[in-house]
Amino acid sequence: MDDCIFCRIVRGEIPADVVYRDELVTAFRDIEPMAPVHVLVIPVRHLQSTRDVELRDEPMLGRLLRVASVVAQQEGIADLGYRLTINTGRDGNQLVPHLHLHVMGGRMFGWPPG
Amino acid sequence: MDDCIFCRIVRGEIPADVVYRDELVTAFRDIEPMAPVHVLVIPVRHLQSTRDVELRDEPMLGRLLRVASVVAQQEGIADLGYRLTINTGRDGNQLVPHLHLHVMGGRMFGWPPG
Repeated sequence: MDDCIFCRIVRGEIPADVVYRDELVTAFRDIEPMAPVHVLVIPVRHLQSTRDVELRDEPMLGRLLRVASVVAQQEGIADLGYRLTINTGRDGNQLVPHLHLHVMGGRMFGWPPG
Repeated sequence: MDDCIFCRIVRGEIPADVVYRDELVTAFRDIEPMAPVHVLVIPVRHLQSTRDVELRDEPMLGRLLRVASVVAQQEGIADLGYRLTINTGRDGNQLVPHLHLHVMGGRMFGWPPG
């Protein structure tokens, strides 16, 4: 996707504070953090949202979730805990149309999640 | 885990409204729903939280996320959108110590997620 802002971050065309990168996923800090630690983990391959995932995406999705736990450990929030969130579509409040997982920690989170 | 409430649901020892089941994950309705649709997707194998995931868990984690999207489709919330949430540890507000993914939809979700 030529003009997708997250694809452009993956390609290095837009600066971002990248904290993890492999062949399937990239993780970088959210530019509008809602917690002391707020990192996004995204698939390298453009997928608009979780509505578009197929059986063949399971390896990438597994990596996405495991890397979230790795990032939480790296960022020092694993011991006290954290929240993982994926927003899908209008009701989910998804703002960027490239699937992304929010890793948020460094404060307590209430219930329900929004 | 003999006394884990979610392991007991997987084994059928505690009744639950199961909406999906395969060899890796089970999905059932949350008994304290915070949205018109509120389903939990959990691994069959007991894992306390995302803090305990390892490389070998990636296939299960990929299935967990893909089944969340399948459940959203089944429940009729995919078109308008939904929110996926995993709570980890104290700060994340995790109440049951067996990894679980919340699939919530049927209403709009605000930001931040708690």
